[in-house]
Amino acid sequence: MKQLGGQMIVELISVGSELLLGDILNTNVQFLSQEIADLGFDIYHTSVVGDNSERLYEAIDLAMSRCDVLILTGGLGATSDDITKPVVMEYVDRDVFLDEESRKVSQDWLAEDSDKEDNRITYIFPKGSKVLHNSIGIVSGAYIPLTDNPDKAIAIMPGVPREMKPMFRNKLLPILKERSSQIIESIVLKIGLIGEYEAFQRLEEEISEASNPTYAPYARDDGVSLRITAKADTDEEAKKLLQVGIDKAMQVYGDLIIEIGHRSKAEVLIDLLKERNEKVAIAESLTGGQISSLIIDVAGASDVISDGFVVYSEQAKTRRLGVDEKLIKEKTAVSEEVAQAMVEGLEDKTGDDLLIASTGYAGPTGERVGEVYLAISYKGDIEIYEHHFKGTRENIRRRTAYTAIDHAIMKMREDV
Amino acid sequence: MKQLGGQMIVELISVGSELLLGDILNTNVQFLSQEIADLGFDIYHTSVVGDNSERLYEAIDLAMSRCDVLILTGGLGATSDDITKPVVMEYVDRDVFLDEESRKVSQDWLAEDSDKEDNRITYIFPKGSKVLHNSIGIVSGAYIPLTDNPDKAIAIMPGVPREMKPMFRNKLLPILKERSSQIIESIVLKIGLIGEYEAFQRLEEEISEASNPTYAPYARDDGVSLRITAKADTDEEAKKLLQVGIDKAMQVYGDLIIEIGHRSKAEVLIDLLKERNEKVAIAESLTGGQISSLIIDVAGASDVISDGFVVYSEQAKTRRLGVDEKLIKEKTAVSEEVAQAMVEGLEDKTGDDLLIASTGYAGPTGERVGEVYLAISYKGDIEIYEHHFKGTRENIRRRTAYTAIDHAIMKMREDV
Repeated sequence: MKQLGGQMIVELISVGSELLLGDILNTNVQFLSQEIADLGFDIYHTSVVGDNSERLYEAIDLAMSRCDVLILTGGLGATSDDITKPVVMEYVDRDVFLDEESRKVSQDWLAEDSDKEDNRITYIFPKGSKVLHNSIGIVSGAYIPLTDNPDKAIAIMPGVPREMKPMFRNKLLPILKERSSQIIESIVLKIGLIGEYEAFQRLEEEISEASNPTYAPYARDDGVSLRITAKADTDEEAKKLLQVGIDKAMQVYGDLIIEIGHRSKAEVLIDLLKERNEKVAIAESLTGGQISSLIIDVAGASDVISDGFVVYSEQAKTRRLGVDEKLIKEKTAVSEEVAQAMVEGLEDKTGDDLLIASTGYAGPTGERVGEVYLAISYKGDIEIYEHHFKGTRENIRRRTAYTAIDHAIMKMREDV
Repeated sequence: MKQLGGQMIVELISVGSELLLGDILNTNVQFLSQEIADLGFDIYHTSVVGDNSERLYEAIDLAMSRCDVLILTGGLGATSDDITKPVVMEYVDRDVFLDEESRKVSQDWLAEDSDKEDNRITYIFPKGSKVLHNSIGIVSGAYIPLTDNPDKAIAIMPGVPREMKPMFRNKLLPILKERSSQIIESIVLKIGLIGEYEAFQRLEEEISEASNPTYAPYARDDGVSLRITAKADTDEEAKKLLQVGIDKAMQVYGDLIIEIGHRSKAEVLIDLLKERNEKVAIAESLTGGQISSLIIDVAGASDVISDGFVVYSEQAKTRRLGVDEKLIKEKTAVSEEVAQAMVEGLEDKTGDDLLIASTGYAGPTGERVGEVYLAISYKGDIEIYEHHFKGTRENIRRRTAYTAIDHAIMKMREDV
């Protein structure tokens, strides 16, 4: 009854007192939840338990009463704080074996300490476990089917995200995939310019009523993403259903779709520039280097960007881009006219094909907070965009930066 | 037995299927965990439940069997997906009252829809509740003591962080504080240059053995932070104990302490510049605008920064900062010499008091990935710093940007 389409139920427990103290943000749960959802499995509960053996045992017991696979992250090292493995071994209560590869890694890393009794916990496993070796760090994970019901299992993985993620993707995922009875295909679309609310409204009927494929829009730092997921018995059928979803989204969002797939918006822009063998130059006032930084964050950006101008003050706009002082006085630095003068200045200084300029009020105080002008010039054709953003100074700056990239991509695509 | 010093036990439940699908990152739990820890209360469990009434009821029932105050976030709106309030009302099972202020807000926001039966849920509350009004959005929260045991209570708050955070700080926190039997004083120190591991090692004895004050180092985007927490019966005693902790940290970390308190590293730098009535100019290669952007993210940055140069390519370094082409050929663009030539170029172009230049390999490929040179010039005195960072392209760029700010602050402070 609790299962949708007979799918497997997964539960997540993150172990670590540092998570209960709020000292670190639990990003593992989001990562795993997304991966599990992509497999078409259901998660009904996730929880966090501190470094306390008794409470962890209770939590495992409760989870195993209501899920098929429990994934525990964290608490896998060799110190007395690392309680996950001892508690799981107590829970499954059976003989152990020694995993030679895990022992070797432990030896290589810890050198003379590795033969101490203390470290033994990192390379012994309950019989019947599949060991999940760690390609980045020391401790191995494990997938441990229960003896009395081998359809149920407990998986343990390290809590450090950069060790856990590759271990999940390369080691645990293939084991879980074998247990999936359906083929799941899913894809994420990145949508430009509009916010989550408008994205939702445009597709409201499908989002609330469609069951296969399903549509889930969500807000991310870089704007709105839409996840489309299709389930079917065969690969071919799932792909066909997914295409139905993509077609629907294209019909609804049209040119606002910046990317269908995994590239970041900055990558999309860089790929466009590379294909056309063109370059971009950027002049930033309120974004103050953020647009340049987003582009340079992509490997290979050096082929398409050479110049960025951070011109936060009025004097810098005049001195470095030749924006007329009188124009700034007359229209204020936050105006269509100054945005246009900034790209014209970029044209003079660089002659690049794509030119982006930002000016606006990021706040936090003042009547015009959130008023932003972006000027984009592509092959000499200049367009100015006015936006009014809400939120904190940080939000306004970030939205401005991503909106500039959205406009730049859309403007380049218009010119086929 | 489970209570430390008779302190109150708090439990957190986040409600929302979007959290179980991994579509959004659960930042509320970290925020609340930290705030609760600062109050000196204990959290043993936090969990996430989807939009399913039966499962939420069970989760509330379990939580109330083991905690004093349960805080639920999310699921408080007026749609059928918003199950938190109906389920809590079913759980406490008593008469309701209508809160006029909540109703008015609901009316103002939803205009003609507000008298629909559907919205009623947003302004009725179980009798005996303290309503927590929302200063940002529509829905009110509530603090609901149990009838049979008024020491136990359930609190409900919206899930949107920018509504939940002020509601917690301004409305729920004062209620919880009344229930604290001890005075808690805590402070966060921001430590520059060194990583989490080294920060831990230097203070290892205190971190593992000290019980009052306690020391908790943790890694954040901007480097290592150290939280010191002291508990006592009186304000004065708690403050005295906290000072003992601060003195210890100063003895161990010395000049590496960038900030004692809440300012960001960029704010510390800006305050220093403002105090001295000085300006900064920045030339960025691998950081590509990130250092400038961190500084401009602080309100009031316009007083201290006018110029930023993103000079990612070799040509841009030469054309815009006058770095000698031959020097780049001879030493490569990633070298002490080129970093120095970049700040010298900045000096020529701007004449500002503080000059920062970055060059390095951010990867992801190549033998020298992570090799970074930072040049800082303060009042004509140039110093070059070499670093070797590990991690992804993004990590290397971010660490470089924050390390540049650390060095700049330390260099300015040396010059008293």
